[in-house]
Amino acid sequence: MDLNADVGESFGRWTLGDDAGLLAVVTSANVACGFHAGDPLTLQRTCALAHQHGVTIGAQVGYRDLAGFGRRFIDVGPADLSADVLYQIGALAAMARAAGSEVRYVKPHGALYLAVMTNHGQATAIVDAICAYDGELAVLGLPGSVLLKTAQVAGLRTVTEAFVDRAYRADATLVPRSEAGALLHDPAQVAERAVQLAVQGTVTADDGSLIEVSAESLCVHGDTPNATVIAAAVRGALIEAGVDVNPFIAPR
Amino acid sequence: MDLNADVGESFGRWTLGDDAGLLAVVTSANVACGFHAGDPLTLQRTCALAHQHGVTIGAQVGYRDLAGFGRRFIDVGPADLSADVLYQIGALAAMARAAGSEVRYVKPHGALYLAVMTNHGQATAIVDAICAYDGELAVLGLPGSVLLKTAQVAGLRTVTEAFVDRAYRADATLVPRSEAGALLHDPAQVAERAVQLAVQGTVTADDGSLIEVSAESLCVHGDTPNATVIAAAVRGALIEAGVDVNPFIAPR
Amino acid sequence: MDLNADVGESFGRWTLGDDAGLLAVVTSANVACGFHAGDPLTLQRTCALAHQHGVTIGAQVGYRDLAGFGRRFIDVGPADLSADVLYQIGALAAMARAAGSEVRYVKPHGALYLAVMTNHGQATAIVDAICAYDGELAVLGLPGSVLLKTAQVAGLRTVTEAFVDRAYRADATLVPRSEAGALLHDPAQVAERAVQLAVQGTVTADDGSLIEVSAESLCVHGDTPNATVIAAAVRGALIEAGVDVNPFIAPR
Amino acid sequence: MDLNADVGESFGRWTLGDDAGLLAVVTSANVACGFHAGDPLTLQRTCALAHQHGVTIGAQVGYRDLAGFGRRFIDVGPADLSADVLYQIGALAAMARAAGSEVRYVKPHGALYLAVMTNHGQATAIVDAICAYDGELAVLGLPGSVLLKTAQVAGLRTVTEAFVDRAYRADATLVPRSEAGALLHDPAQVAERAVQLAVQGTVTADDGSLIEVSAESLCVHGDTPNATVIAAAVRGALIEAGVDVNPFIAPR
Repeated sequence: MDLNADVGESFGRWTLGDDAGLLAVVTSANVACGFHAGDPLTLQRTCALAHQHGVTIGAQVGYRDLAGFGRRFIDVGPADLSADVLYQIGALAAMARAAGSEVRYVKPHGALYLAVMTNHGQATAIVDAICAYDGELAVLGLPGSVLLKTAQVAGLRTVTEAFVDRAYRADATLVPRSEAGALLHDPAQVAERAVQLAVQGTVTADDGSLIEVSAESLCVHGDTPNATVIAAAVRGALIEAGVDVNPFIAPR
Repeated sequence: MDLNADVGESFGRWTLGDDAGLLAVVTSANVACGFHAGDPLTLQRTCALAHQHGVTIGAQVGYRDLAGFGRRFIDVGPADLSADVLYQIGALAAMARAAGSEVRYVKPHGALYLAVMTNHGQATAIVDAICAYDGELAVLGLPGSVLLKTAQVAGLRTVTEAFVDRAYRADATLVPRSEAGALLHDPAQVAERAVQLAVQGTVTADDGSLIEVSAESLCVHGDTPNATVIAAAVRGALIEAGVDVNPFIAPR
Repeated sequence: MDLNADVGESFGRWTLGDDAGLLAVVTSANVACGFHAGDPLTLQRTCALAHQHGVTIGAQVGYRDLAGFGRRFIDVGPADLSADVLYQIGALAAMARAAGSEVRYVKPHGALYLAVMTNHGQATAIVDAICAYDGELAVLGLPGSVLLKTAQVAGLRTVTEAFVDRAYRADATLVPRSEAGALLHDPAQVAERAVQLAVQGTVTADDGSLIEVSAESLCVHGDTPNATVIAAAVRGALIEAGVDVNPFIAPR
Repeated sequence: MDLNADVGESFGRWTLGDDAGLLAVVTSANVACGFHAGDPLTLQRTCALAHQHGVTIGAQVGYRDLAGFGRRFIDVGPADLSADVLYQIGALAAMARAAGSEVRYVKPHGALYLAVMTNHGQATAIVDAICAYDGELAVLGLPGSVLLKTAQVAGLRTVTEAFVDRAYRADATLVPRSEAGALLHDPAQVAERAVQLAVQGTVTADDGSLIEVSAESLCVHGDTPNATVIAAAVRGALIEAGVDVNPFIAPR
């Protein structure tokens, strides 16, 4: 099982997240690319740190919206979005290359991640950009999303993920961040969910029902105060339960 | 002799320059990278067009200053500037790659170009970024500049350029844009200067003196109204004078 | 009848529109506020020019999206959008004040204009910002839009407008810009439509039907190549038809 | 004696500084205006909070440089800088107005603050913007700076400040932030310096010499971890020493 987290989301004078702590725990790093967060020096340092820890580097591409942290849907047309994604992948690839590593996968961020669960135009734009850049890049996303389906049709490797610290509805969608109880903060509870996801492939929804969630990667969030504690608890519990913790695609 | 011009400097709704016209004439394209100008879709299309015309693609890196078009000196520290340059090279490299081509050289833009004639910290930052990305990239700049000296010491290939449509002082520096007569607009006069530069390696300064200027590339500006006419006149005059017009480094 | 046009939409090195020409013809100027277009110096000069011509200054507020020119819907939450609008009104008010004038009305731009035809949250956000700043400001918008209804309930003066150079559907909505025939370019045809709108309160829709359109102001677009010619033709035709051409609210 | 601090420097997802804590202690708030920091909603809330606490609102204007937090010198020309300052003052004025208050003074931020100690062009640009907006606004700056001299000649009220938590050279300039010991972190030591500054008008320089510093306001920094503790210690010590702690200009 892979563990992924968002890193590289500081911007200039503003720091966010415990990148150093998280990169010592996770196996895959969704590194911001400068459009929703991440100044170039932060990205360069984050890639260097990921490489030092043997963590696989992924490009976390987002809408061009620093003020909104990429969390607001933007109705970008496919040609523009595809170029935006290509630009971000290339920028991060240079950082990875300078660190002696490579970008191995792409994961959309925030509102773009949510949009491409259903939005064909934007999903296709992302897939087009990836294919234009490097058909060997994997795509990390939500099971059943239009993004993963489109990527699969295009011949890309797709990787499904589950969220260990987000509440699920009975229909396997996430409870929106704006609702109470959307985020789980107790490391023990989150770790327990992670083991259940990894071993049984199920998660308990917010109505108490047990739903099947197939995931090759577990996402822990990077911007919660105790993110590293949670990530470490998850990793520890997985290993204790006999689950191999490894990146879904090897770093280079 | 190589002919280079700035292209890809439109931004969203705002168009600038006759990229299609210029790319049919020049041999090397200094493509903006999004920091001083150039939205991602513009960059993608510009790289595709350059590739179609067999034009070599260079990364024209600049300060992060859309409002100032990169024409205002910014006292960026070396670590930040190096990361900014690396980011821009990578972003453009993705566009070139999607077009089936590659970035082959780097040229700083505007105030950054002027700064690294003398500023060691910023010149070194650019060279560091290039070396971290790809030591095969050439550096295009002004003869005698600190940038070219620093690049040479670092083992990079350096390429000197002269400006066919800019007035020179007797000390081989450019007359600042803010002064009258800084820009030459007459295609015939500019073409004549180009031939003199290519054949004799000299230019007539604004005080009438003849100065030696060694250049492997001639720069024509892209944002003047008759830029394409000037570029075509230069190319025609060079060929008529028996000068080979070829890129200083082949496109890939 | 009032004539309004968008002005102040240049940004740094990039110029757009014939502001000087338009400000000599129209009676109300929708001046960009820096979020979708308009650098501060452009805004300052535009307000000075508007004041010289006795043209009423309005704040054309938009989404924070220079790359998209405010033409892409952004799902901004009401609190953020209200603050964004307030910020823009204040910024432009300073420019108007420095010119010896004042902002007298607000008109949303581009995708925000379209959104608030139906989007209650964003319409209310705009109205809240206006009320918080100055309840004497008028609101210029489309007849029947949620924005105007919300503004009216809040006690603001509302002003309806029609588009002389845009094709209409039979349901009085505009043909989207992306469709052929959406924009009319013939000055004589546009001028004729303007007179029909002003005198009879009707417009001929794209299916040939005659629809009633109540408008206190006629909008001519500023970013078409012959915008000034069209605006002058409209003004001339209106005056010839005996229509008083005056701002709907006096400049200060 | 007035106590001033920088507030409103958060941006979107990124928070910075303990605005609520500081606004309960200081008498004047240098509120960011969106160019170096401060998204509109943050500015609106900060102005509302300042007004609740009876704190005077000042516009902390900066270079247009979010990535550099306004801490990098930018060689902006006077016309552009003046428009940039005017834009920022107006934007913040709208926020203050919505809160039932007003902007009463202007203080440049970061690299702009340092530049206008000696840079006549940029100092004049700021003064021009202030005069164009409202000649009743005061200017807060360093004693002996070109900014204050220029403002005085223009008939503006000038207010001098000293830094209670910054080390001074014997020539009354500040030890640059890049040097060790530039920032003082011990609340007791800072409070003692504040009293010495307020009562005796002197400060002990880093070479041990006693220098005269005339100041009508004392600045405490907002972005140090214990900023509020330091500010409270300063206020407490001043009151205990019999110094009246009041804004240099009353809020409105």
